Amino acid sequence: TIEHIFKEIFKASLELQEDDHRKALLVSRKKKPEDTVITLKGHQVGSGEPSFVFGPCAVESYEQVATVAKAIKDKGFKLMRGGAYKPRTSPYDFQGLGEEGLKILKQVADEYDLAVISEIVNPADVEMAAKYIDVIQIGARNMQNFELLKAAGAIDKPVLLKRGLAATIEEFINAAEYIMSQGNGNIILCERGIRTYEKATRNTLDISAVPILKKETHLPVMVDVTHSTGRRDLLIPTAKAALAIGADGVMAEVHPDPAVALSDSAQQMDLKQFDEFVKEVQPFSQQSGMRI
Amino acid sequence: TIEHIFKEIFKASLELQEDDHRKALLVSRKKKPEDTVITLKGHQVGSGEPSFVFGPCAVESYEQVATVAKAIKDKGFKLMRGGAYKPRTSPYDFQGLGEEGLKILKQVADEYDLAVISEIVNPADVEMAAKYIDVIQIGARNMQNFELLKAAGAIDKPVLLKRGLAATIEEFINAAEYIMSQGNGNIILCERGIRTYEKATRNTLDISAVPILKKETHLPVMVDVTHSTGRRDLLIPTAKAALAIGADGVMAEVHPDPAVALSDSAQQMDLKQFDEFVKEVQPFSQQSGMRI
Amino acid sequence: TIEHIFKEIFKASLELQEDDHRKALLVSRKKKPEDTVITLKGHQVGSGEPSFVFGPCAVESYEQVATVAKAIKDKGFKLMRGGAYKPRTSPYDFQGLGEEGLKILKQVADEYDLAVISEIVNPADVEMAAKYIDVIQIGARNMQNFELLKAAGAIDKPVLLKRGLAATIEEFINAAEYIMSQGNGNIILCERGIRTYEKATRNTLDISAVPILKKETHLPVMVDVTHSTGRRDLLIPTAKAALAIGADGVMAEVHPDPAVALSDSAQQMDLKQFDEFVKEVQPFSQQSGMRI
Amino acid sequence: TIEHIFKEIFKASLELQEDDHRKALLVSRKKKPEDTVITLKGHQVGSGEPSFVFGPCAVESYEQVATVAKAIKDKGFKLMRGGAYKPRTSPYDFQGLGEEGLKILKQVADEYDLAVISEIVNPADVEMAAKYIDVIQIGARNMQNFELLKAAGAIDKPVLLKRGLAATIEEFINAAEYIMSQGNGNIILCERGIRTYEKATRNTLDISAVPILKKETHLPVMVDVTHSTGRRDLLIPTAKAALAIGADGVMAEVHPDPAVALSDSAQQMDLKQFDEFVKEVQPFSQQSGMRI
Repeated sequence: TIEHIFKEIFKASLELQEDDHRKALLVSRKKKPEDTVITLKGHQVGSGEPSFVFGPCAVESYEQVATVAKAIKDKGFKLMRGGAYKPRTSPYDFQGLGEEGLKILKQVADEYDLAVISEIVNPADVEMAAKYIDVIQIGARNMQNFELLKAAGAIDKPVLLKRGLAATIEEFINAAEYIMSQGNGNIILCERGIRTYEKATRNTLDISAVPILKKETHLPVMVDVTHSTGRRDLLIPTAKAALAIGADGVMAEVHPDPAVALSDSAQQMDLKQFDEFVKEVQPFSQQSGMRI
Repeated sequence: TIEHIFKEIFKASLELQEDDHRKALLVSRKKKPEDTVITLKGHQVGSGEPSFVFGPCAVESYEQVATVAKAIKDKGFKLMRGGAYKPRTSPYDFQGLGEEGLKILKQVADEYDLAVISEIVNPADVEMAAKYIDVIQIGARNMQNFELLKAAGAIDKPVLLKRGLAATIEEFINAAEYIMSQGNGNIILCERGIRTYEKATRNTLDISAVPILKKETHLPVMVDVTHSTGRRDLLIPTAKAALAIGADGVMAEVHPDPAVALSDSAQQMDLKQFDEFVKEVQPFSQQSGMRI
Repeated sequence: TIEHIFKEIFKASLELQEDDHRKALLVSRKKKPEDTVITLKGHQVGSGEPSFVFGPCAVESYEQVATVAKAIKDKGFKLMRGGAYKPRTSPYDFQGLGEEGLKILKQVADEYDLAVISEIVNPADVEMAAKYIDVIQIGARNMQNFELLKAAGAIDKPVLLKRGLAATIEEFINAAEYIMSQGNGNIILCERGIRTYEKATRNTLDISAVPILKKETHLPVMVDVTHSTGRRDLLIPTAKAALAIGADGVMAEVHPDPAVALSDSAQQMDLKQFDEFVKEVQPFSQQSGMRI
Repeated sequence: TIEHIFKEIFKASLELQEDDHRKALLVSRKKKPEDTVITLKGHQVGSGEPSFVFGPCAVESYEQVATVAKAIKDKGFKLMRGGAYKPRTSPYDFQGLGEEGLKILKQVADEYDLAVISEIVNPADVEMAAKYIDVIQIGARNMQNFELLKAAGAIDKPVLLKRGLAATIEEFINAAEYIMSQGNGNIILCERGIRTYEKATRNTLDISAVPILKKETHLPVMVDVTHSTGRRDLLIPTAKAALAIGADGVMAEVHPDPAVALSDSAQQMDLKQFDEFVKEVQPFSQQSGMRI
């Protein structure tokens, strides 16, 4: 057993090195104790006030996006989402409008003075996309598409990184490190549910990930209540839980007419449900004195 | 394909029957739309005001339990937990004090006028236990120990039923139905985390289960923040999330000296942490105007 | 960091103790290097020759069991299964014939000279059941019903212990230790699939568990191909895989008329499928020179 | 309920369409009942004889690859693997030699007359890589990197597609469809373990996926025993199980000196273990009369 002790001493020194290594992560609080705050068209993400991101799953037309943009602006929000490149399980499902969709987003964003977030799926498209949109989203399926992470890290544009379907929190943090190691530290992390055996919800919202990510990193953390639950009836309660636990923001999908949506029709809110969502969630965040 | 249509018509009528069957569940909202409220030594669980259950993982001695009971009473709470029968992974780990532990719980509960919750693991012990304690707890490992469920359903004593380690919400609801079908409808459901691939927390708190259970059943729903996270640093944020999402109560473990606890020493709060927990969580539930 | 080194030295000595503890497990190979062989009416389980256990999910009538018993005997097998106590998700599903079912099993087993395996779910029934059956089965839902494990450990009758729905291999081994620590070392372990996100099969057969259990313990290991897959079309290939990887036996459900079965009708083989199963799997185990 | 019946009739016709859609999948057996056979330097994958793929996790040097290549050729095998682009959790881990690595693979493959399989991670690299290697591998993390799938589908080179970490079988089949829908039907599917709660193995080998994939598609199916188990001591038994259940081939990592490997050092076989593996697994596949 003396042999074992020596083996452990050796192991301990190895771990020390590893620990130093981890300490060195650019995204870690150990490296930078202050919160990273990201400013988007004047709105600050990560400053203590909750941020809200709304918009359709996929960009379908100018009219569709403009209708939602108007509702967002009317409620005083600043951030809009909309997918132009849609990663879909089947190659025969609607794949998004591509660059055309990005152009629509830019036009609408300019008209309504909103910052726009859209998913990019090919490293070759990152630079092009940066001309149209305010935040590059890297989706759950691409969380370990390291070439895409590196490409997003090489430009000067905020990145919203979603947690992978079955990614550990440690892998998620390392994925963010891929981006930051290329020079781009403007990263928003987004918990969007993980895959478990439970089928009552589309995914299982791992709410505890929020305080862990806030503790381990200096990055803003959002919760996507639409993809984590996949159920319209859970959007309001999970949004409250997300804000209560300390998330910097909430994402939810809004579509003028979900029934005819080209993707995810079952889980998007229509404009009336959007009203109700805001009426329920906004005062909650104020009354509960979040961050004060 | 006309054949297929007919097959589907047949299937649809089958499903209708099944749906009726589900409608018939005694624990369902369909059967009883009003919330079930359970009164424990004057305190109401499920009435809209959040309930808090504190206490040590295991009963170790009169002094240990009394110390915690005093702290609970001083803060104005009414519900205490403490394990006398401990289901442990290894047969060589501390198995609890058994009936002796229940006697200690009763003595302390009487002295401090608290209602006490304790886990019972053998159907043969249910009646005996009912003499000492106010709520029979059925633990996660026994959620589908149907003989135990039936025994708990046959007595006139509230039951706190924890969700199984890998139970679906549907299985959880059916386990409660086992109890109620024997005549006992005073059941508190308790979400305590599910087993997933993620290892940053002991289990993954399935926070969305709370609104689903509230919607599907008329029973009070609590969240055990200790067992779901297994991390002392997550107790406060997850308790806030639980209340924000609509849980009727929160359970958390408190021990006078966690370092020497005979079980789960790493995750129990000491009395100072307990103070801090209450100072953070209680005003949150008031300010956020929960249930008003 | 010198401090850290010392902490690690301390940790290492702790681990050494823990390792000794593990070494001490009665079910471990470290404790007893030779394979445990269990003899049932002359048939040896764990001796190197594969064992096969067939029979209906639930005992429904004398005729039903006798029909299957005859088919089993005609094929030269010795082990039959059949459930008299059925743990069912809903309290309104068929719960088994109880002691009446055990009597039927005994009568048929005597007539066809078979050894019979049946699940017991209440500690209070273990002694009674031992009069009727040759092997006490403890089912997946009760793998951590420690009172039941202790009761089964206190009698002189072999026990077939199924792995829990979401039990780790370590928990499974410790559950067996609960039985053996009471004095009963005649334990057969049974892998029956674990709960994962994949829904193409009822559970996910964790085939790697077989060699791990064979390495860590001295107990025979079987694979239940019916419950792990829940699909009749996968019984033959998974049985081959189980034998190829070193399982001591295979369990599969056979019912004279699955369509009218009172439980699990979709996954049981009828007698013709049973013929085919034996015709495919038996020669495979011989040709592949298993264990020779 | 008459209303419900009509709703179901409508739903049924929708499902009919969906079913037709699924029937139309190019990779499905419904579309093409005969097995797809892929010929690589004269060796046929999917013809009924098992295929074996060996080689180091990562290409480190000409000498390293050549040493393994010689061992492969000496044993009469034809297929070699080796990673030039390594997707690693941390950006600070060895990322592979890139095109330099592909050149080494090509040189060695030419010298030893082997076909070589290597992972490509960027759609922009697919065409370049096709000049050096015989099979483009798409790794688990990129199974739903649809841009990469499309790029691999657009060239005339076989593709080995690994199942994603937490991909359902249905998603896996659809990922293959992305490739085939671009014109390239020479696809080998590879089961490599899925992520579950069990930590005794690196991943959980989902052995049942093999017969399901063989039934649902016409593509050859391999099993990667190294990544599914992550344990050297399980390579031989799981390889036997894979062949017994009907896999068309087995992949395993071999390194001349695993202890100094730049990645995955704990799970690669050294040359002596490689000998033993072949000595155990090859006769098994012959004696068990696989496919005859």
